[in-house]
Amino acid sequence: MTDNTLRVLVWGENRHEQIEQHVRDIYPEGMHTTIAAGIAENLGDTARVSTTTLDEPEHGLSAEVLADTDVLVWWGHAAHDEVSDEVVDRVHRHVLSGLGLVVLHSGHWSKIFGKLMGTSCTLRWRSEQDRELVWTVNPTHPIARGVPHPIVIDQQEMYGEFFDIPAPDELIFLSTFSGGEVFRSGCTFRRGHGKIFFFSPGDQDYPVYHHRDVRRVIANGVQWVRTDLPARKIPTLLRYETGDFFTGHGYTGPIDA
Amino acid sequence: MTDNTLRVLVWGENRHEQIEQHVRDIYPEGMHTTIAAGIAENLGDTARVSTTTLDEPEHGLSAEVLADTDVLVWWGHAAHDEVSDEVVDRVHRHVLSGLGLVVLHSGHWSKIFGKLMGTSCTLRWRSEQDRELVWTVNPTHPIARGVPHPIVIDQQEMYGEFFDIPAPDELIFLSTFSGGEVFRSGCTFRRGHGKIFFFSPGDQDYPVYHHRDVRRVIANGVQWVRTDLPARKIPTLLRYETGDFFTGHGYTGPIDA
Amino acid sequence: MTDNTLRVLVWGENRHEQIEQHVRDIYPEGMHTTIAAGIAENLGDTARVSTTTLDEPEHGLSAEVLADTDVLVWWGHAAHDEVSDEVVDRVHRHVLSGLGLVVLHSGHWSKIFGKLMGTSCTLRWRSEQDRELVWTVNPTHPIARGVPHPIVIDQQEMYGEFFDIPAPDELIFLSTFSGGEVFRSGCTFRRGHGKIFFFSPGDQDYPVYHHRDVRRVIANGVQWVRTDLPARKIPTLLRYETGDFFTGHGYTGPIDA
Amino acid sequence: MTDNTLRVLVWGENRHEQIEQHVRDIYPEGMHTTIAAGIAENLGDTARVSTTTLDEPEHGLSAEVLADTDVLVWWGHAAHDEVSDEVVDRVHRHVLSGLGLVVLHSGHWSKIFGKLMGTSCTLRWRSEQDRELVWTVNPTHPIARGVPHPIVIDQQEMYGEFFDIPAPDELIFLSTFSGGEVFRSGCTFRRGHGKIFFFSPGDQDYPVYHHRDVRRVIANGVQWVRTDLPARKIPTLLRYETGDFFTGHGYTGPIDA
Repeated sequence: MTDNTLRVLVWGENRHEQIEQHVRDIYPEGMHTTIAAGIAENLGDTARVSTTTLDEPEHGLSAEVLADTDVLVWWGHAAHDEVSDEVVDRVHRHVLSGLGLVVLHSGHWSKIFGKLMGTSCTLRWRSEQDRELVWTVNPTHPIARGVPHPIVIDQQEMYGEFFDIPAPDELIFLSTFSGGEVFRSGCTFRRGHGKIFFFSPGDQDYPVYHHRDVRRVIANGVQWVRTDLPARKIPTLLRYETGDFFTGHGYTGPIDA
Repeated sequence: MTDNTLRVLVWGENRHEQIEQHVRDIYPEGMHTTIAAGIAENLGDTARVSTTTLDEPEHGLSAEVLADTDVLVWWGHAAHDEVSDEVVDRVHRHVLSGLGLVVLHSGHWSKIFGKLMGTSCTLRWRSEQDRELVWTVNPTHPIARGVPHPIVIDQQEMYGEFFDIPAPDELIFLSTFSGGEVFRSGCTFRRGHGKIFFFSPGDQDYPVYHHRDVRRVIANGVQWVRTDLPARKIPTLLRYETGDFFTGHGYTGPIDA
Repeated sequence: MTDNTLRVLVWGENRHEQIEQHVRDIYPEGMHTTIAAGIAENLGDTARVSTTTLDEPEHGLSAEVLADTDVLVWWGHAAHDEVSDEVVDRVHRHVLSGLGLVVLHSGHWSKIFGKLMGTSCTLRWRSEQDRELVWTVNPTHPIARGVPHPIVIDQQEMYGEFFDIPAPDELIFLSTFSGGEVFRSGCTFRRGHGKIFFFSPGDQDYPVYHHRDVRRVIANGVQWVRTDLPARKIPTLLRYETGDFFTGHGYTGPIDA
Repeated sequence: MTDNTLRVLVWGENRHEQIEQHVRDIYPEGMHTTIAAGIAENLGDTARVSTTTLDEPEHGLSAEVLADTDVLVWWGHAAHDEVSDEVVDRVHRHVLSGLGLVVLHSGHWSKIFGKLMGTSCTLRWRSEQDRELVWTVNPTHPIARGVPHPIVIDQQEMYGEFFDIPAPDELIFLSTFSGGEVFRSGCTFRRGHGKIFFFSPGDQDYPVYHHRDVRRVIANGVQWVRTDLPARKIPTLLRYETGDFFTGHGYTGPIDA
């Protein structure tokens, strides 16, 4: 591990795997482990990939852990409400300060994604073994590097429009489903000093995180959301005197005493 | 008032006017009254413009009032924290359901704007009588209709970049200040079924809301954020069976019983 | 016809109708006539809708005609190359000066659309009676007003991604095809003082321009591309002296004599 | 030079330097040489930086040269009209096929930039030794890496809005001038398989290309516009049979024989 090693943390809710045998059959060591393996497989020595889960103290997302993380990958579904607001606020501050964030699939309805988007993040859905095709509409984007056009996923849950998100900064992938629906399945957003990639393919009921191309896209996304900024710093409201562009003063309130 | 009359409600914090004589001198009946007059002056019979303030019960923003409002105009500054989370959540739901929202000046740091943007909404500032020039970079946008290029505001508070907002859906105005700073001063955002316009010119310490062109822009913005959708409805997560594109079923939870 | 009447001109290539009986069967008076009827049906007294075709002198697009037109609707396919560069340049100047432009279907490969986009405007296609579904991803856009979600078109030519256009200013519609492809089928672009709407549904081999919802979208688009600017004027490079923001001088060349 | 070396070609018009002594004083070996030195200074061993000029055969931009170039940097001003349409068409095809393009300053009015943008690319200007401040509005963009906020340029030509370009895919820098004007001075665009960066600071009359931060931004831009795609390929219109997503057939014309 060098100074430039990309520090990736995959956060998994890890509930379906405990409760449902058919999920455990697909992901015997937990979905987070499979997702992490896909990233490591693609990024090799350039990344250190670890995992944590909801049931850890502070959901495994203490201030120390986040400070030691460049990119957080988020998978949650059945227990969004169990994530404490305190941890969500902490992750939110870290994202605005420069933490990269990759939100996967049902993470669209996580507290952290909703807080960053400001919208309901709702959509239409159906889990009936649709075939999903993932089409690239932004072929020069680094996140689209090295995957076929389209990516074919034989069995998937359907996510369809209208997906209530802000218009993405960059729309990279569009998915169609054999039932006829469409979804903006790969989107980037910049918020504060942080970069965010949302990618919808992936589900507990299907072996999507074993799919070579899906793993490649997630790894590409992990690389892309890494911030170039030298240090984590939250944007701050500061006063600047006339002619001084570089030295801001702290805010002292709206009304002079 | 016809069925198509635009129902506008100007929300004013109304605190500076109570506390500071120099603000009362500029806005003797309150800033909200002056802002409302500027809208009425431009929209005439096509709009019904009313006002309310922070100190009203429920801050004047009950469910009934919001249901009877097409466009809410927001000015706040010194008392953002006094706006109750319950009211903010209610306004947020209404915006996602189709309520138009115009956020003015120091409203950039209001709870409702922050909740809709997902970012810190911080900026650099200085109140030292800068001249502000408001330049149009989107000349075919309806919000830019009928104003000079640039709009000249002789005295203003400086708001400067970096302004921590999501990249706007549409960037309409850029402001420069005599001190050399720049600000994305006119921006649109779509969130859910709602449209939002942020416009930064305007301050309690300067007579900006008496400025003819500023009033025109605010009135243009009020018209633009009005939603075409026939009824207020929040985006909802629904299940659609294969082949049925029009009849969604309510969500029954992530794990089958 | 009042001073505010929207002056719409539908330009049709009118070649398939001359050559192919099955096209004449669907559009006995020419596709342009059917398209124009759909606009008139929706806009009623507020618009004056006329038509012209490739084989007219100057392709029916003389300087006089364009000066008397607010919005030009373009349908071409088999004879893009027969449109003279001189007329294309004239239409291009008019669009940059404020003429609204709606480009339909195979117009994606017209000279005027290519010149405005700067890209190849290529795509993937197939004409095998796919069902097309047109999904709204920008529900508050005026162009999406009043149409079902999705619009169902029983038989259509397939247009698929990658569609080589600039990222649209606003993405309004996404189409899926029964074969599984996807297309950015409703897009807006602003260029100079002109507004442009591209809408892909519509073909000579299928009765798409008789479809109620397709007609509604085209009419909505015609209304949207109309420019608010008071007079047609091409953006011009001008010199402005320090402190004079309103009076530009004509450019006199890159090197002083 | 390794297989991954970035092959950069700086194209300079090289006319002011021949005609005007004061330009020769600032750029004794030609502006292109200074620009190239700034890129080499920042990219070191990772790049091979060469130059060519208008007066070379085929303006130094033969098919062979372009095929051996990853990124083309363009500076022109007084002789845009002397660039042959044939060479412009060739560069245009290469950009759509994956050649990266950085357009500098007065290159805004070059044939190649206009052809890619589709607009007039006009602006307001003045050459009166304004101070230019370059503000970052997209702090997580790689092109903004490592430069102060703002960049201070003591003497510069003024370029002001309205700048008639398409809304950029990404707006990175905004410039203000001591006279009060504003300009979208750092913008990215994706066209076909090519990436484009426009950066306005830089002029023949001022020593801007000797400025450390300007050189850094140009070098960052050169890195960013490099395409990840494995081979240069122009987007092509192809027919795909139902169920075959990967094998397109060449287009055989609009009407069956």
